Order: sequence, then structure tokens, then C-alpha cells
Amino acid sequence: MPQLRKDIISGRWVIVAAERSKRPDDFRPAQAAEAKPAEARGFCPFCVGNESKTPPEVYALRAEGTKPDEPGWRVRVVPNKFPALNRGPAPARQTAGLLTWMEGVGVHEVVIENPDHDLELADLDAGHIRAVLKVFQDRIGSIEEELHYRYVQVFKNKGKEAGASLSHPHSQIVATPIVPKRVKEEIYGAGRLFRHSKECVFCRIIREETAAKERLVYRNDHVLVKVPFAGRFPFEMRVVPLRHEAYFSRVREEELDGLADALKTALTRLKTVLADPPFNLIIHQAPNPAGKNHTEVDVEKAYHWHIEILPVLTRVAGFEWGTGFYINPVAPETAAQFLRVGGSGSVG
Amino acid sequence: MPQLRKDIISGRWVIVAAERSKRPDDFRPAQAAEAKPAEARGFCPFCVGNESKTPPEVYALRAEGTKPDEPGWRVRVVPNKFPALNRGPAPARQTAGLLTWMEGVGVHEVVIENPDHDLELADLDAGHIRAVLKVFQDRIGSIEEELHYRYVQVFKNKGKEAGASLSHPHSQIVATPIVPKRVKEEIYGAGRLFRHSKECVFCRIIREETAAKERLVYRNDHVLVKVPFAGRFPFEMRVVPLRHEAYFSRVREEELDGLADALKTALTRLKTVLADPPFNLIIHQAPNPAGKNHTEVDVEKAYHWHIEILPVLTRVAGFEWGTGFYINPVAPETAAQFLRVGGSGSVG
Repeated sequence: MPQLRKDIISGRWVIVAAERSKRPDDFRPAQAAEAKPAEARGFCPFCVGNESKTPPEVYALRAEGTKPDEPGWRVRVVPNKFPALNRGPAPARQTAGLLTWMEGVGVHEVVIENPDHDLELADLDAGHIRAVLKVFQDRIGSIEEELHYRYVQVFKNKGKEAGASLSHPHSQIVATPIVPKRVKEEIYGAGRLFRHSKECVFCRIIREETAAKERLVYRNDHVLVKVPFAGRFPFEMRVVPLRHEAYFSRVREEELDGLADALKTALTRLKTVLADPPFNLIIHQAPNPAGKNHTEVDVEKAYHWHIEILPVLTRVAGFEWGTGFYINPVAPETAAQFLRVGGSGSVG
Repeated sequence: MPQLRKDIISGRWVIVAAERSKRPDDFRPAQAAEAKPAEARGFCPFCVGNESKTPPEVYALRAEGTKPDEPGWRVRVVPNKFPALNRGPAPARQTAGLLTWMEGVGVHEVVIENPDHDLELADLDAGHIRAVLKVFQDRIGSIEEELHYRYVQVFKNKGKEAGASLSHPHSQIVATPIVPKRVKEEIYGAGRLFRHSKECVFCRIIREETAAKERLVYRNDHVLVKVPFAGRFPFEMRVVPLRHEAYFSRVREEELDGLADALKTALTRLKTVLADPPFNLIIHQAPNPAGKNHTEVDVEKAYHWHIEILPVLTRVAGFEWGTGFYINPVAPETAAQFLRVGGSGSVG
């Protein structure tokens, strides 16, 4: 069973998932943790026809009349075969002296975005991207019915350098019994700014960035795409809904089209400008609305869900680990200029 | 001029150093940011005889009678040729609407640890490692005379995967006009625990870990090496001085021998157990003691300097960026068992 452990000084939690690999030899260059011999031999467990090679599906969009774990699906959700956390009842926090830990209870699922191994999220039509987003919403809703899953993190690792161990396009969903530190930080930060100005800081950012223009990438009736003023990574983007809303799971039917269009645009521009770079994508939303909110912030008013797209072009090194500062070698305004145009040529 | 920008929600600062590279093409796979054509052609600016290829040295341990920027040195400190921050007077914080920034003022130096291109820090004798540590202390002392350099971060990136752009063994020193978020977090965390128990939490950890034994790696009269209970990365280590002290720069002469011995032991074990892995090393100490302490914590009592050694064996991906959680696939107790023995074979 994995274990959740707390660093009492920083408040950071880690998952010790020792079953995943154990011996130092596993980390020697030749046996890199990412090496997946099966896929290297041309086998992909996420491809159509290999449904029996994943754990049984928990959800799928499939053609009428087709059966679970058989072909006929458009989007398929399965439990992760090597989960970081395992489903179970609410874990109790345990302590001994300065140590704090709990059982590694949680959810870890994989969303196979489409049956075609070679079609990336950016390559799908907006209708299919919309369907993937809707699957995220449905899974979040279902997981949050169990109140001890305090936070549901949806994310995507694209490319080996971004941590993807399989190349077939997929996203992941991890639910934790603790509201994560990074989410809390954003909520506290937004809460502090809300108390000060009586307005959601993300709504203010939308207004100011729309006026300033220089960091804008794209905008439609429902969503704005921009490069953040203090982005950590070159060509980092934020996809922010125009309507104030704390929960991604509450995005409305009519807004999903705009979101799919904006996401497709952002990912296509990234792909064009940077020649298909590895990236991480994360959805940040408020913690499980049915559970107790331990943050003492009125999240519905102060927090605003959004997507972060983080290209993997630079390395996080000693300076970043030591300080929490990041060095961004591309001015956000320059990145936005390229991303607005979408080509890799020179810009004005 | 680089710029320091603040993310107002998270409080994180980033350095936008746009001179370093600019065009999307620089990030295309073939032209990876790390590519250093000169070194690839067998040229190393840090090797003996190439002193004129670095900016003029600011400090060196050299044989009597030898001149600056000529051979004869054992340890040599030069300004970084591509600095993240530039020396200058205290920068003023500027704001416009929600944006906050300041000029990218700071210090960025490189400590060339020894003249031999192929001798890593772990390979040097303890006496030479002691000399390198002493150079760190001297540089910190000198930089902190300028009060607006609020924090001095000493770090080492070893190996390309850990962010090193040159392979000749070296460390780096970056001073910032702001106390970094990660350092503040540790100070606030330690301060909170100090108020609660009236004792430095690091001193308590030393006592409890010494008693528990299972995460200990090494101990001498002055220093303890351990694997942290909630470490983020497999085989992560902490080097902690036994005597309570907030400042690395105040480590005493008689303690430096013990520190050099412990550091050599830790790095040699890591090298043996994991076949010379890439790693980051950072020194965490309290902010500039001569400047004003903005943390409202009695750092001299509550904080305890230490070294973090972070092997680069796993990838930071979407889940980590989204949550701040880390997944450690090796139980710290297992890692410590291997690191105590120092071989890569099986352990009990």
C-alpha cells in the first residue's frame, strides 16, 4: 500500500509508492524508470483491440451496442495499472514524534483520449475535444461523490520529457484525500486579494490583460488564452474562462464548445511554434464542493478555475529547487507574439 | 536587463532573462538550450589554460606567486558569462495594476571546484572539498556586505539532466534582492514549530532520526546525513550540522573538516549506489544577517542551515506541477539502507 507522508516544515505531502520500483539498479541509465519494453516492441495497451491489456474500464463513450472493454469507444477511462494511490475508505492521519503520515488512499485513472495512437489532443476536432472535457467533468463528479476525495487533479503529460510513459494520447486523473499545497496556495492567494478588492483576482486579470493586449494569445466568447506575466516557463499559457466559476465540473454545456475551441487553438499554436514540444497540462479548480472547505476562503467567490499549459523546454535545476524562483528565458510578451500568429517565423 | 516579476496569487517570483535566448527556434529539439557547441567540440572554458575564456576571476585559491586569470589555482570563482541577474544598486519595486516587478539585480557567480575536468566533487580529497566549502563561505560573506542582496543561494547542478550546461565540476552562487519563497516557507514552518515546542525543529529531527536509525546514512562528530522521511525524490539526502546554527557562513573552522568528510561520504555513496547519477545540491541557510529580516521569525533560534542533495532519477510532471505533491518510488528507509552500505547489491 502506498503511503502519504507530510514534510512538517514545508507542509508538503509526498506519496511513497514503493511498489512501483525498488532497487537502485532500476534507476541506472540503462534501465531508466520510463523505459517501457512492451511499447518499445511496438505494443500499445491503449490502442483499439488491446482493451483487455488495461484494467477493466470504469467509463467510456462508445458506439451503441458495443460492450465494455471491447472496440467501439471514442474516449475510454481505465484505472491506472500502476496507481500512485489506491481506492479505499477515508484514511486516518497518524503521527509518531515529528512524523505524520496516512495510508495512500486515492483514485488514479487514465483517460484514453481517442482510439488513434497518432492523433494528439491538438489534432482532434473541437467536437472530440469537447467530448474529452465532458468525460473529465463526469469523472470528477463521480469521484467527488465520495467525500474523502478532497481534490481531483486532472492533468496530461505529453512527451517523454514531460513524464509520459506511454505515447498514446491520454490524460490522468488523481484524487487525493488532502487538498494539495499548490491548490491551497492559489486559494489563499486569491482569498487574500479578494478580501482586499472585493473582486475575484482572476476576473481582474482577464480585464487588465484584455486591455493591455500584449500577453493575449486568443479569445472567443467564453474563454481567454494568455501568457502569464510572471510565467515560470517559456511559452507557458493560461486558459481562463470569462465567466467567473470556481469549478471546472460546473462549466456549462454552451461553454464547453468555446473551451474546446480555445484549447485546440492553444495546443495547435504551441505545436506549430515549437515543433510539437513536450508539455504538461493541468486543470486547477476548487476542492470537492461536497466536502468541508478547510481553507477559510469563500472559494466560490474568490477562486476561478483555469488550465495551465506548461511546455517542457528548460530544466528545473538547483537554483529553482533551492529558491522556488524560476528563470524564464523568453519574455512572456515575446512568447505571446509568436503564439498569436502561430508560426515559427520572425515576428515584428 | 533581466527583470524580476511577481506572480501575485502564489507570491512566486520569476526571472525573465530574455537576453539568454529569444526565438522559438532555439527550443526546437535540434537546438536544445543546453547545447554548447564549444564544449561539444572538446573545448572547456573552465579548464586550466583557458582562464581568459571566462570573465575575469573575482576570487581564487592559488599557488603563491601566480597571477589572477592564469594557471596555478585550486578553486576559482568567476562571474557567470550568461548571468540570470546583474549586479547593481537596490532595485525599486514597481507596479501597474496587478503587475509587480523590479529590475533583475543580483549576483551570479560560478565556482570552478578544481582544475581537473574529470574530477567530480565526490572524487576530491576531503581537504579540497573543505577548501571549496570555505570559498562558498567567503563569497557569501563578501556578497552579503551589500545589504540589498537579501539571500545568497549556493547550488550545484551535476549532469545534463540536472541542468548543468558544462561538465567541468562547478557550483554556482546566485544572490537575489528578495528572500525566496522556498526559503521563506522553511523559515515560517520552522518558526511555527519553534513557537510551539520552544526548540529548533531541525535539532529535534536530528535527535529523533538518530534514535530511529532507519533513515540514517552517516554521522560524524559534526554532521548527520539522512534520507528525509517525506523526501520528494528517490535517494534524496539531507546533510545537517549537529550544532544549531542558522548560517552556513558561520560554520566554524573545526566543523568544516566534519562537513567535508560527510559531504564526500554522501556523494560517494550516491555515486556508487546509483552509478554516478545526475543530481542537484543546494545549501539552505538564513537570509543575509546584516539586512532586515522580514519574516518575523527569530531565524537564529528557529532556523538551522543544511544541505539538500536531490538525485535526478524521476521526472516532475503534470501531477507534481498541479498539486505540489511528489511521488517517490523508493521508500526513504530502503534508500537509506542502500546508502548506508554504499554498494548497489541487495540489502537485507
